[in-house]
Amino acid sequence: MKDIYFITSNKNKAQEASVFLGFQLRQKNIDLPEIQDLDVLAVSKHKALMAFEIVGKPLFVEDTGLYIEELNGFPGAFAKMAVQTLGVEKIAGLVSGPSSAYAKTVITYHDGKVIRQFIGEKRGVIQKNPRGKNNFGWDPIFQPEGEIKTYAEMTKKQKVAVSHRTKAFAKFKKFFT
Amino acid sequence: MKDIYFITSNKNKAQEASVFLGFQLRQKNIDLPEIQDLDVLAVSKHKALMAFEIVGKPLFVEDTGLYIEELNGFPGAFAKMAVQTLGVEKIAGLVSGPSSAYAKTVITYHDGKVIRQFIGEKRGVIQKNPRGKNNFGWDPIFQPEGEIKTYAEMTKKQKVAVSHRTKAFAKFKKFFT
Repeated sequence: MKDIYFITSNKNKAQEASVFLGFQLRQKNIDLPEIQDLDVLAVSKHKALMAFEIVGKPLFVEDTGLYIEELNGFPGAFAKMAVQTLGVEKIAGLVSGPSSAYAKTVITYHDGKVIRQFIGEKRGVIQKNPRGKNNFGWDPIFQPEGEIKTYAEMTKKQKVAVSHRTKAFAKFKKFFT
Repeated sequence: MKDIYFITSNKNKAQEASVFLGFQLRQKNIDLPEIQDLDVLAVSKHKALMAFEIVGKPLFVEDTGLYIEELNGFPGAFAKMAVQTLGVEKIAGLVSGPSSAYAKTVITYHDGKVIRQFIGEKRGVIQKNPRGKNNFGWDPIFQPEGEIKTYAEMTKKQKVAVSHRTKAFAKFKKFFT
């Protein structure tokens, strides 16, 4: 186990991250305010700085945004809030037809000296009709570029093979090796 | 002039606030991160605490949220972001028909010892078709209870006479007298 904390309330995410990175992480749940900014880079950096003030040990945070071009980047870093309030059907209803979008995961690492951000992006299309029941959040409306399935029509394994999140973790892993 | 700072980037708001309160305020513009929370009370309190750390003098901040019941409170404290990205037509398109909502302004005062919050609420209806060009933001879709005009069909003076914001400032004024 490396002495690195993954600041998250989600045990599954922490477990998956350990698998991605190839070493066991420490998980810590801190209730951190997220700043109100569409930009997930800004949100993630702010969280990492706040978390370091509390934890004082090397740590990282992970955040994801969904950017729909026709909607001027909505919901961006507010994707989770938008799913919780509007739901995926209503979000899908906001686009005029299959609509360009990208998903972006940002991992911000902070050890007290260095702050580094690792970005994983996946381009895709927002579909007006949600499809699939797997995975979570806005997965039923996001169909990654080059795929015929939405994230929610893929198995967990299929999604992991192509996802924005995997790309961010691949970059983060290189940083350690 | 009282030695109270209104933390805002908006000079007009500061000028209006001085009129509401009946004494001249000091205006100060600080770029403060807003936390990501639907609840405008939480957003406002966090901002006041952050601002006091910087300013160190009695101050207040003012924030407004729009809560549409059918949309589980969306956009709440994210109303400004929702207008900037989606625009009022798309927000109006999210409701099934005239839909219950309320607007809420929160003023948080902080002098280093005391934190006080003053809340002004106005119930109303979100109209599917925006009406009017006056005022700003989501005013074309919000028709206050007991009125036949939306905020954007009212003159500035008419709006001030009934608005959530006026109610919050009226309470805040009492606090000083």
